[in-house]
Amino acid sequence: MPEFRQNFITNEWVIVAPERAKRPDQFAKDREKKPKRLEHDASCPFCPGNEDKTPPATLTFGEGKNWQLRVVPNKFAAVNTALLPTRRSVGKFLSADGFGIAEVIVENPLHNEMLSTMPVKVVRDVLAAYKNRYAAISKNEHVDLITIFKNHGEKAGTSLEHPHSQIIATPIIPPHVRYLMQRALLYHDTYGVCPYCVMLEEELAQKDRIVFEGEYFIVFCHFASRTPFETRIVPRRHYSRFDGITDGELDELAVILRMMLRKLYVGLNDPDYNFMISSSPISEGDLHYDHWRLVIVPKLTTLAGFEIGSGIFINIMPPEDCAKFLREVNAD
Amino acid sequence: MPEFRQNFITNEWVIVAPERAKRPDQFAKDREKKPKRLEHDASCPFCPGNEDKTPPATLTFGEGKNWQLRVVPNKFAAVNTALLPTRRSVGKFLSADGFGIAEVIVENPLHNEMLSTMPVKVVRDVLAAYKNRYAAISKNEHVDLITIFKNHGEKAGTSLEHPHSQIIATPIIPPHVRYLMQRALLYHDTYGVCPYCVMLEEELAQKDRIVFEGEYFIVFCHFASRTPFETRIVPRRHYSRFDGITDGELDELAVILRMMLRKLYVGLNDPDYNFMISSSPISEGDLHYDHWRLVIVPKLTTLAGFEIGSGIFINIMPPEDCAKFLREVNAD
Repeated sequence: MPEFRQNFITNEWVIVAPERAKRPDQFAKDREKKPKRLEHDASCPFCPGNEDKTPPATLTFGEGKNWQLRVVPNKFAAVNTALLPTRRSVGKFLSADGFGIAEVIVENPLHNEMLSTMPVKVVRDVLAAYKNRYAAISKNEHVDLITIFKNHGEKAGTSLEHPHSQIIATPIIPPHVRYLMQRALLYHDTYGVCPYCVMLEEELAQKDRIVFEGEYFIVFCHFASRTPFETRIVPRRHYSRFDGITDGELDELAVILRMMLRKLYVGLNDPDYNFMISSSPISEGDLHYDHWRLVIVPKLTTLAGFEIGSGIFINIMPPEDCAKFLREVNAD
Repeated sequence: MPEFRQNFITNEWVIVAPERAKRPDQFAKDREKKPKRLEHDASCPFCPGNEDKTPPATLTFGEGKNWQLRVVPNKFAAVNTALLPTRRSVGKFLSADGFGIAEVIVENPLHNEMLSTMPVKVVRDVLAAYKNRYAAISKNEHVDLITIFKNHGEKAGTSLEHPHSQIIATPIIPPHVRYLMQRALLYHDTYGVCPYCVMLEEELAQKDRIVFEGEYFIVFCHFASRTPFETRIVPRRHYSRFDGITDGELDELAVILRMMLRKLYVGLNDPDYNFMISSSPISEGDLHYDHWRLVIVPKLTTLAGFEIGSGIFINIMPPEDCAKFLREVNAD
């Protein structure tokens, strides 16, 4: 029976329509694992030996030619550090020069590995690089929103195979983000607690959408998930900015993120996916009503006209079934 | 130089980043036109002779076996007319049974034609069927939002080849739609005019994003377009509900919609696309601050982590260039 479900934070509705569902493993059957590529590609700008094909690194782990991870400014960035975001009228419309900071985290020297197939130490380094660059970039006086994300595979919007993630910092808080924050603020005004903390407690109480309970992090497919296997990794501790993460939390997040990506790789045959870290705007410090989170969205379905027009997503796979499947996939 | 641009209605920002741009015709070069299929497919539920594979039609144009267009309930609907949308608590979360009406408009008996390759009369019939079903469905006491849309091609979310569009009616106004309406209402409260009318006038005054000026409709790629070749067809006359369209307007809309889809077919080699008709909620009648519109979104780029996380779209093709290209494509 189809069911409308409301997102606890945004009040956005999704339709969970299991009549149209595939079994979880059918999402895997539609696809073969991508062929194994070579360890090194001489034409890849992120492979060792081609360091001069990128702008100078803003952060390097490892020594000289034996680097283990590099962060470099994005050569083909959609934003530009040389501009200023002053608003300007174009008739009745509004624009601003495209100031922003865009960096690429080259996760590893190997061209053909992925976060899901690399040792935990590599994932730990990647997360530490996120924190390091987040903290450094947040010192720029014009930066307000910092988005950390990864596009894995063509359907997720990348054509570069070498494992990498990205950071884009903008001077602008878009309505998409402000709307979420205002909903959370009103909830806090009303109930005196962070709605993300409440959502986490409620998911823990209902239990059937929980994928994993760590010491510091909970993994779940939330009640009103918009797409199959959409998964959140949320810290138990309340804090709103990603760079507040402790060393112990980084250790556990590395293990959990690798495990979740590995479950997708093994259980769904290496699907394309995006993940994003949502964190509070820089100008507002640590907020009592906001709560950072990492969201993984596998690209298994297509956005169609109904979703674009109405904003209501049709999810053919109940999050309870997704969580059960993910719990049971052996990712060792 | 990259530029932030703000959507006049939603205040949402996009980054127009022409440094990363392809030339418009390169979007065509990436793709070949789909191979011509057979006129009739015995296994297609929408082809003549298979009328018993769909539920009984709610509207038919033409006589008996010589039907020209059929509207049928969607056999695999994500919503169900037998339910009621009463809200129900699931712990702290909210759900409702999935009431809704979902119909498919089978646009033509021919399996292998498209709106862009069929005569204007067929497109006129399709639009008349939209109006007829919109008006009929709006009489259902539980219906509030009616979304008319078309998914053309796999990347747009359809696997059925036979030319068809869809209507989904829901009892719920989602925040996505309400937010747009509230922005428009506040604008009207402030300036005493419909913001969509103002946007139309401003686009006409700036001129370089106008694709076509008809007697009743204007076609343009708006200032803050999120994706390349996103195109709006908007009535000059102010009214907020699609079913207020007159016969003369229907005549012109058929010519214009076919022309625009033909320009995509010819100029960009038959890209996958969605189009959606956005129209006011049923329960609120005709609104002085809302304005229906038809939006065409070709699927030429991929939603990536930055867009999902921040809500800021990066558009690599300035709408001025898209409008110029579309003006110049010969679609005769």
